[in-house]
Order: sequence, then C-alpha cells, then structure tokens
Amino acid sequence: MLLVSNSVNFGSGYLDHCEEQIRELFAGVREVLFVPYAGTDPDAYSKRVRDRFERLGIEVESLHEAGNPKKAVREAQAIFVGGGNTFLLLNELQRKGVLPELRQSIRRGIPYLGSSAGVNIASPTISTTNDMPIVPVRTLDALGVIPFQINPHYIEPEPNSRHQGETREQRIKQYHDLNPTPVLGLREGAMLRIRGNQMQLIGNGAKLFRPKRRPREFKPQAMHFLLRP
Amino acid sequence: MLLVSNSVNFGSGYLDHCEEQIRELFAGVREVLFVPYAGTDPDAYSKRVRDRFERLGIEVESLHEAGNPKKAVREAQAIFVGGGNTFLLLNELQRKGVLPELRQSIRRGIPYLGSSAGVNIASPTISTTNDMPIVPVRTLDALGVIPFQINPHYIEPEPNSRHQGETREQRIKQYHDLNPTPVLGLREGAMLRIRGNQMQLIGNGAKLFRPKRRPREFKPQAMHFLLRP
Repeated sequence: MLLVSNSVNFGSGYLDHCEEQIRELFAGVREVLFVPYAGTDPDAYSKRVRDRFERLGIEVESLHEAGNPKKAVREAQAIFVGGGNTFLLLNELQRKGVLPELRQSIRRGIPYLGSSAGVNIASPTISTTNDMPIVPVRTLDALGVIPFQINPHYIEPEPNSRHQGETREQRIKQYHDLNPTPVLGLREGAMLRIRGNQMQLIGNGAKLFRPKRRPREFKPQAMHFLLRP
Repeated sequence: MLLVSNSVNFGSGYLDHCEEQIRELFAGVREVLFVPYAGTDPDAYSKRVRDRFERLGIEVESLHEAGNPKKAVREAQAIFVGGGNTFLLLNELQRKGVLPELRQSIRRGIPYLGSSAGVNIASPTISTTNDMPIVPVRTLDALGVIPFQINPHYIEPEPNSRHQGETREQRIKQYHDLNPTPVLGLREGAMLRIRGNQMQLIGNGAKLFRPKRRPREFKPQAMHFLLRP
C-alpha cells in the first residue's frame, strides 16, 4: 500500500511528488481500477487520472463505468482511490456495496494507492477526516486495512494566527477523548509505504497522537511496525 | 435568537465580545437551560458557563443534570447551546430524544443563544460544520430553526499558504455541488440576531454562498430577510 497525504504538492503537478513511489508500487501492473467517488464529477475525475497514468504506461478503468462494480473490484490488478470529499466517497462505496470486496482485495495483497480521502478510507473509520459531511453515511466504518487512523493534510497552527477555531491537534485530542485508536497526522508531502506489518514514512514528517500521551514526531525514511491500539 | 460564530474572540474572555447582545437577548430571564453536549466533560463545561452567567445575574441549569430532559426543555425560559464538537452534540441530542422539544421551544419564541456548534445545530443540517466526526450521528438533520446553513469560524485562506488541503470556500462549494441551501460563512467576531423573518449581522462581516452564484459580502449592522433556498 502507498498512502499519500495529498495528491498535489505545492508548486508541482498532480501526483508528481509521489511518482517514483507509484511506479514502484505499480511495477508490472498493466491496468489500475480507479475509484472516483470522492469527487462530484466522476467522468472529469477519471479522465484526469487516465491522462496522468497514461504517462506511466498504465491503463485506468474507472469504477463508475464498470457494469458490475463488485466483479471489477474482485478482478482488479491494482486499485487507486483518489481524494475529494471523504463522506461522498464512503457513502457511494456503501451504496454500491463494494466495501467488503475492496477490503478482501487489499488484504489479498494487490497494490493499493490512496491519496487524501483514499487514505481516510483505509483507516478503521473516517472519524479523522478534515472534510465536511456534505452527504450522510450509514456508518463511519471504513476499510480498516490499517489498524490506526490517519489524518491527511496534517498541519500545525499558524504561529501568529488569531483564529479561535480548533487546531488540528485539538480536533484529534477531541477524538481521543472518546476513542483509543492512534492517529498519525500525515503532513503534506508525506506518504506511507506499507508492506505486511511494517511501514515506512517517506517525503516529509508525521506526528503520532495517542490518548493521554504526548504527541511524537516520526522522521522520514524511518521504518516502523504498524501502529496498534 | 442570537447565533455567535465563536465563543471566545482573540484577546478577550469567554463570551465577552457578545456580552451586550446576550444581556439584550436574555433581558428579564432568570434562568437559562444550558446544553453542554458539544463538550466531552459536561460537568466542567457547565461549571464554566454557570460562573460566566453568574456575572450577568442569570442562573444556569445544565441539561445533563436534568432528571427529565424533555420536560426541562419544554419548561425552559431560555436556552444556550455551547460550542465544541458538533457531531458529539447532535448525537447526544438524538440519543436523549430532545430535538423535537428544542425545536418547539425555539419556534414558540423563547430566547435561544448558540455559539459555534450551537450555531451549526440551528441550521437545517450539520453538513457545514468544521468538526471531525468523532462519533456517528443517526442523521445529519439538526433543528432547522433557520432556513439556511451557517458555517461558523468562517475564514479566508492565508494569502501565502502552501497548504493544499481544501479552503473553507472550496468545502462550501463541494456542499453546493450537491445541496441547494444557502450557506452563510460567519467570520469570527460576527453574530446574527434573528427576530421573526429578519436578521441583523453584528460585529464582523459574513460571506454568503449560493450554488452557481458568486459569493456575496454581508456588511455588519445591515438588516436582511432570512435567507431561503
């Protein structure tokens, strides 16, 4: 799995900052199944992804064009879930009933690329998304193919800000007042490469939050075991 | 109704920046029913509010201490719903089954003060909250005692920011890709005084968003009719 905080890094193009890692993840893959549901316009979104992956020599099938979505997921060689609105994404996956198939395919070991909302959806729940609940979801339960929560686009407060809304860290603290699962704040530019029970942080730092403990910095390139509650 | 974007303004104390408007709203009120459920510690939260309202000469009953919550809402002279996490607040109101009573009391015309999450809850749904979904809710439907959505703590992006996460305006745009209801972005320091079908913006500006239209600035002190879809 490759879990990318953000699909566009400041000053570079779509998926450019993680191209090397995507090439590695999808080595030998001819076609990727793309899940466009975090966006409000799946046609435009899948065209953008198709154009981008053409440059990597990889074909793209979009899940919204599949006649039989469950079958498409079961038979996929590799999967990419793109960013957008996490509630929209989860709601559509729930309506299509493909969450069990996605979970099984990923657990079977096919390469999975997730960015932003596609990272939230890999966590046990979408409780640490930054997105607005623009549509309802049946439950907050997501794929749970990693045993901890990720907060993508993690950001520290601006040092001179006068804004009184909760900081990202305060929001994660609220989550931990009620939930025990560790939360990894994945800064922009950071990504996680996961193989078996090991994970490596790449590109930028991350900050680990656990209930009633001080946050801990994760340095890029370091190898870690998967975080467990 | 008095709907306040933020309960603490930069550089001042709890509810200080709106004290004059609260005194006006609660003129003649001896006791306010406080709804503490947006916080994770209702005892500490209600103590804070009790201490603050003591300085206004107003007693506070906290809903979490009421033996019969529905009765407490029905018999309240005035209601204050404080800020915190909107999902936590809505979930608890749904579990206690007091949303219909709250709606009726407010429609009957008793004074209602809401700040932050207490503003989200006054809207038709909580879809324009900034909070993380740290607990599930049965539905996103809220009180609907105003016919439009508010986004409290509304903020423009930092001009030199390199952050690639969605801006507040982009998040509201996502909401409008799927929903027709107007959204009023209520900046910090801003509050809305609502009487019948008229509302007045006080303290700071607000920005009005509607689907497929350019955002419009609302100036403080201006009177408006209630925004309708």
